[in-house]
Amino acid sequence: MDIKTFFKNDRFANFSGIELLEVGNGYAKAKMTIADMHLNGGNVVQGGALFTLADLAFAAAVNSHAQLTLSIQSSIHIFKSGKSGETLYAEAKEVYSHPKLCNCEVRLTSAAGELVATFVGTAYRKNVQLPFKPIE
Amino acid sequence: MDIKTFFKNDRFANFSGIELLEVGNGYAKAKMTIADMHLNGGNVVQGGALFTLADLAFAAAVNSHAQLTLSIQSSIHIFKSGKSGETLYAEAKEVYSHPKLCNCEVRLTSAAGELVATFVGTAYRKNVQLPFKPIE
Amino acid sequence: MDIKTFFKNDRFANFSGIELLEVGNGYAKAKMTIADMHLNGGNVVQGGALFTLADLAFAAAVNSHAQLTLSIQSSIHIFKSGKSGETLYAEAKEVYSHPKLCNCEVRLTSAAGELVATFVGTAYRKNVQLPFKPIE
Amino acid sequence: MDIKTFFKNDRFANFSGIELLEVGNGYAKAKMTIADMHLNGGNVVQGGALFTLADLAFAAAVNSHAQLTLSIQSSIHIFKSGKSGETLYAEAKEVYSHPKLCNCEVRLTSAAGELVATFVGTAYRKNVQLPFKPIE
Repeated sequence: MDIKTFFKNDRFANFSGIELLEVGNGYAKAKMTIADMHLNGGNVVQGGALFTLADLAFAAAVNSHAQLTLSIQSSIHIFKSGKSGETLYAEAKEVYSHPKLCNCEVRLTSAAGELVATFVGTAYRKNVQLPFKPIE
Repeated sequence: MDIKTFFKNDRFANFSGIELLEVGNGYAKAKMTIADMHLNGGNVVQGGALFTLADLAFAAAVNSHAQLTLSIQSSIHIFKSGKSGETLYAEAKEVYSHPKLCNCEVRLTSAAGELVATFVGTAYRKNVQLPFKPIE
Repeated sequence: MDIKTFFKNDRFANFSGIELLEVGNGYAKAKMTIADMHLNGGNVVQGGALFTLADLAFAAAVNSHAQLTLSIQSSIHIFKSGKSGETLYAEAKEVYSHPKLCNCEVRLTSAAGELVATFVGTAYRKNVQLPFKPIE
Repeated sequence: MDIKTFFKNDRFANFSGIELLEVGNGYAKAKMTIADMHLNGGNVVQGGALFTLADLAFAAAVNSHAQLTLSIQSSIHIFKSGKSGETLYAEAKEVYSHPKLCNCEVRLTSAAGELVATFVGTAYRKNVQLPFKPIE
């Protein structure tokens, strides 16, 4: 199994129309095209949809070493209201990696390259190997 | 229209199986029963599903004054992995309210009362009235 | 040695005029009287002074079990500008405690009981015993 | 008056031995050499000292437009324990700027270029002009 196949089993991300595009060593990129299902009561993209897009990229980046790594804390800063039909990209980079803890930054941008939101996550590594090859 | 009807139009929350139970002045409570669709690749509830549950309660609490209030920053701290079949509750309380800014704390608990996650959000009030009566 | 004696060695807190008033099991309370030295260029209390007050209470609460516990992430939300001469109190409560990780919430209030700021911190427990009796 | 002179009046930063090195348009750099006064009970640099270093760079970057801009929320992620004698640098960049709100990222590095901590802050702009020329 490769890591992208493993993450195909993330049902909430699938369900939210999020696609994992690329995974590297401490790196991942995902996308989501905003549809009616992602909107909130104010007709802009719900914060939870933006968060889920960022969270999938974060999870793939920090688990790219094939050691189970769980999110313990994350923050999202939202700058723009995504509109229906727009495609958003999330790019995640591990900025700190330690045997038990790591930190990862994610930038959400529009197809035009505008910064839509930023996300920072802290995760904890467990002594569990994941069923795919670590990415080097 | 009342505020609960307004939030019925939050398509991403609906779609995620989240139900707004109660809204007060600077207060809201919501619930979500974890189903297969909320799980991640590791078979525990995806962080984005927990975040969306907290975010709906946050949005209802800070918009309870009927002035459009948008999330600008929020953090989630995750303590337990929710399991399929479990019902989780989010209870949101505005702890600071100012004409332009506010802050709201949300606690996510299991039906047994265990603390599953905490959430803190900062929001910005716009000069837009919402189409329901403010809750006093 | 007791825990309050141990924390008397926190030179940055001392230097900032912060006093640890009380430590319990997963609990601590500290105070700081705002002086000219705590002010920023705008003549209100510098965010770093508020943060240091919260951080000392956080550190005492999470280390009350006598296992070395280090801050990995913390957030502060500032609601009011403290003024010179005012005494501020920080009250910290561990809301989640696990053998390797914990989470602690701190509230900063004025002597009049107004909420000045909130703080949430995540910390990591190391396999190092501290030289005082755990508080039970 | 120029902006560096204005920030010389930040008494808590001065008192903490922090020096503002450079300010640009939405940008600032500051430094602090860790001394005994910055240490905590565990003999590593107190989180409040790291935060204050980051906060001064953040404040200078977001106020570089000469409009009074106040911190409302900030987070710090700490990766390494700074040691006595080491010089740390904080580099702040505004990543989002709006007439009422802005967001700024700060990286704390050692003289050797190691990432010591990251900081993200959200600030609110008031209708108050500061007594120096905006930096363009």
